[in-house]
Amino acid sequence: MIKPLSLFIFNLSKSNIAAQFKFASSALPQFSSEKYGVKRKSFGVIQPSDIDYFKTILSEERVVTDESDVLPFNIDWIKNCRGQSKVVLKPKTTEEVSKILSYCNSKRLAVCPQGGNTGLVGGSVPVFDEIVLNFNLMNNIISLDEISGALVCESGCVLENLDNYVRDHNLIMPLDLGAKGSCHIGGNISTNAGGLRLLRYGNLHGSVLGLEAVKADGTILDCLRTLKKDNTGYHLKHLFIGSEGTLGVVTKVAIHCPALPKAVSLGFFGVKNFENILELYKRAKSSLGEILSAFEMADNESISSTVKNLKLSNPISDYPFYVLVETHGSDEVHDSEKLSRFLSEGMDSGLILDGTVTSEPAKMKNIWNIRESIAGAGLLEGYTFKYDVSIPLRNYYELVELLRKRLRDHTAKVYGYGHVGDGNIHINVIVPEYTKQLYSILEPYIFEEVAKFRGSISAEHGVGFRKPQFIHYSKDESALQLMRDMKKSMDPNGILNPYKVLPDVPNI
Amino acid sequence: MIKPLSLFIFNLSKSNIAAQFKFASSALPQFSSEKYGVKRKSFGVIQPSDIDYFKTILSEERVVTDESDVLPFNIDWIKNCRGQSKVVLKPKTTEEVSKILSYCNSKRLAVCPQGGNTGLVGGSVPVFDEIVLNFNLMNNIISLDEISGALVCESGCVLENLDNYVRDHNLIMPLDLGAKGSCHIGGNISTNAGGLRLLRYGNLHGSVLGLEAVKADGTILDCLRTLKKDNTGYHLKHLFIGSEGTLGVVTKVAIHCPALPKAVSLGFFGVKNFENILELYKRAKSSLGEILSAFEMADNESISSTVKNLKLSNPISDYPFYVLVETHGSDEVHDSEKLSRFLSEGMDSGLILDGTVTSEPAKMKNIWNIRESIAGAGLLEGYTFKYDVSIPLRNYYELVELLRKRLRDHTAKVYGYGHVGDGNIHINVIVPEYTKQLYSILEPYIFEEVAKFRGSISAEHGVGFRKPQFIHYSKDESALQLMRDMKKSMDPNGILNPYKVLPDVPNI
Repeated sequence: MIKPLSLFIFNLSKSNIAAQFKFASSALPQFSSEKYGVKRKSFGVIQPSDIDYFKTILSEERVVTDESDVLPFNIDWIKNCRGQSKVVLKPKTTEEVSKILSYCNSKRLAVCPQGGNTGLVGGSVPVFDEIVLNFNLMNNIISLDEISGALVCESGCVLENLDNYVRDHNLIMPLDLGAKGSCHIGGNISTNAGGLRLLRYGNLHGSVLGLEAVKADGTILDCLRTLKKDNTGYHLKHLFIGSEGTLGVVTKVAIHCPALPKAVSLGFFGVKNFENILELYKRAKSSLGEILSAFEMADNESISSTVKNLKLSNPISDYPFYVLVETHGSDEVHDSEKLSRFLSEGMDSGLILDGTVTSEPAKMKNIWNIRESIAGAGLLEGYTFKYDVSIPLRNYYELVELLRKRLRDHTAKVYGYGHVGDGNIHINVIVPEYTKQLYSILEPYIFEEVAKFRGSISAEHGVGFRKPQFIHYSKDESALQLMRDMKKSMDPNGILNPYKVLPDVPNI
Repeated sequence: MIKPLSLFIFNLSKSNIAAQFKFASSALPQFSSEKYGVKRKSFGVIQPSDIDYFKTILSEERVVTDESDVLPFNIDWIKNCRGQSKVVLKPKTTEEVSKILSYCNSKRLAVCPQGGNTGLVGGSVPVFDEIVLNFNLMNNIISLDEISGALVCESGCVLENLDNYVRDHNLIMPLDLGAKGSCHIGGNISTNAGGLRLLRYGNLHGSVLGLEAVKADGTILDCLRTLKKDNTGYHLKHLFIGSEGTLGVVTKVAIHCPALPKAVSLGFFGVKNFENILELYKRAKSSLGEILSAFEMADNESISSTVKNLKLSNPISDYPFYVLVETHGSDEVHDSEKLSRFLSEGMDSGLILDGTVTSEPAKMKNIWNIRESIAGAGLLEGYTFKYDVSIPLRNYYELVELLRKRLRDHTAKVYGYGHVGDGNIHINVIVPEYTKQLYSILEPYIFEEVAKFRGSISAEHGVGFRKPQFIHYSKDESALQLMRDMKKSMDPNGILNPYKVLPDVPNI
């Protein structure tokens, strides 16, 4: 029984998707290599003797070779990419990962490290017959220092499980994603996942205290310190944050968990135009400052379609723009006083046309649900082209307007919504169905415009398999060359997650 | 006229030290190479033709060769290290830096990049005849986005000047150091400077948005984006944060400036023992949470000696330990309510023996002055061995106790004080005068103990010239080898800041 895509989206946080995957063979996506015209590089081809060797390192049941068992690990959750791996390895320890990589490196066997397989750019599934190195069984919590907030765990821990664990100790994880029910902390780090708490708690480069990683040649790199300050030589951990498993494989993580907020409040406001949103953001930074945990926007098209398609209820009337403001604080009275003052000052000045402020969990959930449903709501109307870009705030909304102009002779809706506080806008273009003509109207046009603004063509989602050919819109040749140099230095045989991230890396 | 060292310490933030340096020749420190027995590597020796070439790139007056003019650039501000450079170059543009490095690389001439020269580990002065690349003239502010808080500037901007500039726009710099009146933002980034605001605003890996750097071969690397989220390939900027100018030279910086706090409050408390400090810290994180901007401790020895030596007045009585708690917030009434509640709950539970809370600038300055004067106060009693280490909080104060035991048969005072919130303790050992015997009692003992705790032998100060031989106490061989690999890949001739950071890097 094939689950409709929309269900996958809405259930993403509920359980491990890979485990749930059941495919009717007719519904299998096309092989990525064929779909995107990629040629296999001259890696070794796995032999029965290799499988035998892996069985000596791992136990028999942790070397998965049955075709139907391997299938879910070959397909990404949006069913866009499909690889042709023949084997999935499930190590339980760093030493096992080290032995596997050392062996693969000596035999030039390519490897695709895989966490929760929730990525959106095909980075976590193989393209050809790369060996899938899956971290589901490396899911132990090693230690938690309640005073400093330092959590140490293995890389296969599911983000939501970690969040539940640290909440019992009055802490929270510094990141939160829609995919938290499936994604692994190791994958979060490898992809530098952003998410909903970034505005308040900063990015992973700031909150990862240390890590342990295994290099392509099997060397175990021990940078697993729990210290906030450590200026002894190069800050190596950052090599593995956001390099999508191409420079090494993260096996253990030390991460700083902030204090659990005692009070959470939410405001949802109607606003006349984007200029007023920017002015409101400036005021929020000044008057809510330290308690501001999210500042999100969505345009009318996003909200009205979402509310209509999913039969949700909008707590305020119809406005050109909407702003969602969340606070995390240590005193409910103080926080709601600040947020109410922000609302009344915003209304007095005309920046806010109407709004509601609440601390009631059910009401907050309802508002967040509207915001979080935008991503998938368009799927019910047809095909969705999805973009995730960063643009400097003064130009943040211009791309949406440019696109509407460009598409005015076509049946198309353009949704603009995102994390204003992070300069990160999501743009969905909803059309009755996918056509090559529409595709060529949108790409590379969108990336060209993002490049003009000195923005990023991938704010949170990464490069993976789907975007190496567009990376030059955000990285110049000097940066690309340094990336190639680093890859060559750290993985000279190119076995780690090939065909991903880097454009035109010569193989072996 | 030679200024006493203590004056330098207390005036560090007031003006550019290098410019003030006047030496009586008798007071010149010994050459670092002789003092520490280092051998010159086989770099090229600068020729008159090289000087002529530099004068064609820069104007005549920006190629400094007069011995007395060069002298201040050869000596670090604590007069510990002295190099033998013959020439100081003062570029004004990135292109000039690029031309200089490209030329030096082709001639294998070694280069020492120098910011404000306020480092404590000899990283910013040459050891032999390295060419000093000084950034005093690259001090332009390029742009400030008031809404997002993104400041873009050249690397030679003095931190305090930047802080003053952004304060006029209701923002603050995310870092603050005692050396802010002299240190350059480029040097801050190259050394991953920590300082007083780290607990609240995070480290530079989190707050640097982008940078421009020049590699050893003169390649200009443009990663100068102002985006908070950008997942397009390797996160290259982190290579230059904390690598102390050995992998490249930072020329421009984009950094996120948080909102200027509207309210600042300070509490100063007497505490019975270190266990109670930890319990108080836990409570502060929970009840002050989002407004907590500093949580500092000092033991009785530190405070009583400082107050006595410098004739300061302690606002509370004599206690075994002291805690300083600072808040940065957006509402003075809310903040002082939180801090007063923290004080009264602390006193009710016996964790706080006595304390004072204030928002008056003069009183706050007085309390901070006691805390900041500890570093130099011991100099008035004799020689000070200074250590700057990170230790996990549960073991944070143990090293002080171990040292007192180890030194019980000697005339010695041990001060323990530091940033509890960052796990960073400063330990000063004050003795009547330096002796080799005392030195050998302290080192490498201290580093061995720090290693046992899995701490860092250099929390904020870096490795520089003084600590490469100790780096193995905090980094294992796998990490050191990766550091060497990166150095070899990015600076194959080893011309950038040689003799620093890395132990035993083969030359050329």
